[in-house]
Amino acid sequence: MNIASPLVAPLSPELIARFTAIVGARHALTDPAELEAYVTEERNLYRGHSPLVLRPGSTAEVAAICKLAHEARVALVPQGGNTGLVGGQTPLNGEVVISLKRMDAIREVDLASNTMTAEAGVILQTAQEKAASVDRLFPLSLGAQGSCTIGGNLSTNAGGTAALAYGLARDMALGVEVVLADGRVMNLLSKLKKDNTGYDLRDLFIGAEGTLGIITAATLKLFPKPRAVETAFVGLQSPDAALKLLGIARAEAAGSLTSFELIAEIALDFSVRHAHNRDPLQARYPWYVLIELSSMRDDARGALEAILERGLEDGIVDDAAIAASLQQQEAFWKLREEISPAQKPEGGSIKHDVSVPVAAVPAFIDEANAAVTRLMPGIRPVPFGHLGDGNIHYNVSQPVGADKAEFLARWHEVNSVVFAIVLRHGGSISAEHGIGVMKRDELPGVKDPTAMALMRSIKQMLDPHGIMNPGKVV
Amino acid sequence: MNIASPLVAPLSPELIARFTAIVGARHALTDPAELEAYVTEERNLYRGHSPLVLRPGSTAEVAAICKLAHEARVALVPQGGNTGLVGGQTPLNGEVVISLKRMDAIREVDLASNTMTAEAGVILQTAQEKAASVDRLFPLSLGAQGSCTIGGNLSTNAGGTAALAYGLARDMALGVEVVLADGRVMNLLSKLKKDNTGYDLRDLFIGAEGTLGIITAATLKLFPKPRAVETAFVGLQSPDAALKLLGIARAEAAGSLTSFELIAEIALDFSVRHAHNRDPLQARYPWYVLIELSSMRDDARGALEAILERGLEDGIVDDAAIAASLQQQEAFWKLREEISPAQKPEGGSIKHDVSVPVAAVPAFIDEANAAVTRLMPGIRPVPFGHLGDGNIHYNVSQPVGADKAEFLARWHEVNSVVFAIVLRHGGSISAEHGIGVMKRDELPGVKDPTAMALMRSIKQMLDPHGIMNPGKVV
Repeated sequence: MNIASPLVAPLSPELIARFTAIVGARHALTDPAELEAYVTEERNLYRGHSPLVLRPGSTAEVAAICKLAHEARVALVPQGGNTGLVGGQTPLNGEVVISLKRMDAIREVDLASNTMTAEAGVILQTAQEKAASVDRLFPLSLGAQGSCTIGGNLSTNAGGTAALAYGLARDMALGVEVVLADGRVMNLLSKLKKDNTGYDLRDLFIGAEGTLGIITAATLKLFPKPRAVETAFVGLQSPDAALKLLGIARAEAAGSLTSFELIAEIALDFSVRHAHNRDPLQARYPWYVLIELSSMRDDARGALEAILERGLEDGIVDDAAIAASLQQQEAFWKLREEISPAQKPEGGSIKHDVSVPVAAVPAFIDEANAAVTRLMPGIRPVPFGHLGDGNIHYNVSQPVGADKAEFLARWHEVNSVVFAIVLRHGGSISAEHGIGVMKRDELPGVKDPTAMALMRSIKQMLDPHGIMNPGKVV
Repeated sequence: MNIASPLVAPLSPELIARFTAIVGARHALTDPAELEAYVTEERNLYRGHSPLVLRPGSTAEVAAICKLAHEARVALVPQGGNTGLVGGQTPLNGEVVISLKRMDAIREVDLASNTMTAEAGVILQTAQEKAASVDRLFPLSLGAQGSCTIGGNLSTNAGGTAALAYGLARDMALGVEVVLADGRVMNLLSKLKKDNTGYDLRDLFIGAEGTLGIITAATLKLFPKPRAVETAFVGLQSPDAALKLLGIARAEAAGSLTSFELIAEIALDFSVRHAHNRDPLQARYPWYVLIELSSMRDDARGALEAILERGLEDGIVDDAAIAASLQQQEAFWKLREEISPAQKPEGGSIKHDVSVPVAAVPAFIDEANAAVTRLMPGIRPVPFGHLGDGNIHYNVSQPVGADKAEFLARWHEVNSVVFAIVLRHGGSISAEHGIGVMKRDELPGVKDPTAMALMRSIKQMLDPHGIMNPGKVV
């Protein structure tokens, strides 16, 4: 089945006027200088262009935009905080951008039901802070949280550092409000944990990267705010040792283990040298793990110490530091969060957001290191990520002194080598960042053919004119 | 949009022969005596009829059956353990039954990835026991676990008593294998927690009650087996007191609270008198709560005592018994599980499996009690269920001495009154049992119209000839 090709003809002045009338002139941008922030993205990996950015202020306005776009066959790219890493939010073919950022109301916080109903444009950090202000936790947590939005988080099914305990964005939404491609509004907002009335439509739109409709609001789960949070930075010899330590942590503190991040020495080194973070340990080790426990009772410290003691006894842990203050906890996390930006001064970096079954992580890293080195001697693997979820950000920095552009030109070649190993281990080529445009061409090669055909049928059914984020995902 | 009408013409001998050839004569039943167990259900609420029951032994056989049924326009009803409570598994219009019970292999247990890949026909209890035998927990737990199957659990998105901590069946499956209506096999089996490669197709089939395709296998999550499980039976004055105790339990033991069941005095009374269970407390109380904590550390007892002490101090808890042995724990649970069967000697019972936001449970029960009593003086509400999930089994027993048939004839009338209150509280008319045929006519009245239209479009797309479990859900 062919997905309808989007019609991205130059917009007539009449159509621009009709779109503008929906949101008001102040919120319809056509000035190239104003458009710039919407057609580019932080890493300069993707650069788009657009005749028009619309900033609707309500679900009704989003619906009116979609209805008109559907009728007039105008392609749309929905955009939240514009922090996506696979080009999903960029108007690569001159599409109209529909920015959800003005829809930033928190419609309701219901403490009795432990829910927050937030519009798509609410910044993740704002949602976290709102939850904290009422003694609750909204656990989704990722590097871009200061600018990414709830709508984008759900559309990409974001993961992050707390997924180990709380799941992905999908798991944190009880319900969504969606505007379909033809402008119909579907209200699936719900405070219910249990609702078996028919097909699960919510999950069709979560993770669809704006290709099936636009998520305009969501009912989010809130959790009790942990009373005790304890963080340790651990030095060890190998991913295998880290995996054993994960086993110990699960056995000692299953319910309280909220993060278990693996960090290669070179990643720590970059973060220390280029982002000026402090090395928490006295000596250097080949690998590190950042562990966090969160508990409603005051037992997290004891549990963390028990884990580290068993790790030392079993010869798995070489050294460890427990954060003595909130400040130190934040310093540990800053070191972790700044690995990716700290790669920049080292030249080009080719990235892979992959997952394999947790037990296969050590073998995957070994094999991938060997394979990329065979492909390009001197290449520098910088693996780090969410070991507890089997999700490794397998980034590779260019060889020292190599030409950055030449290195980056081999992006897909390096990808292919790494993805082949991922697939051999039954893994995923996109663990948490999504498909977007970056991995669209790879998708048919890794997806069950019936599943691929079904995805295309669903796209065709929900967006027959192909106006919703064309050229992304399917 | 009209869903295609299933063609349930009397099967020609030639078609019966072709279906029989797929599974072999031993596994194609046509003898009415042998069919009986497949066309009836335990409560005698639904009685169907069928010319043929097929018992395939493999995914390939299921695929061949569906392909033939699709081509020949023969309606199918997939069936697992035949324990469903909404008639979803009954061939009400003479459909061919496809029983998955022979597909009962546990294909793999992967301790490193904490997964079990089980075929659809594996009995839930067998899956639990298999997990326990390798020191793991498969937490799905419900009354019918001795006969219901994994395929049925997933197709109905079963809930049960551990949903508070572990979620519904949906949350326990990483991936599924599905045979589509036209016989295509879709392999979405996966050991990955994180996989953002395209649309979430898995969740479309989970909870679809066999109307979109047949789940033939699933990769299930395994959890660490708790070291300590502590259970308490608590007497208190009202659902409101129970809700306050839930708040305390969440604050004291968020990560370890695995069950929080509400029981009305009359429900306990029925279970004690008719199922010969022992009342765990010395005196009678208007309401009861069954609390269970599970922990990886040996702190569950302390946490449970802390919860009960705070409850006593705050005047919420009247009396409580902590199970002193595994035997006593089992006795507490038996009392709870046997409430529904213990209603039988009291005459007819009209049942509602509903959910409302947790905070609204006390108001819902008050209002529902008043409304059904207005409708039928002397009617006896027997509410119990999963308070922690807002999911109440709002059963009502007939007035003492009333005519059972006359009472049951008012099933939908009583439903309407109760459902109206559920909807006023933003609740669901089917929390965990599904829609099946029982609530099919109610669904359009409670579902967002766009969602309803989308469900029909999906059904039409995946099952254009309407052969998969016709007349159920949509």
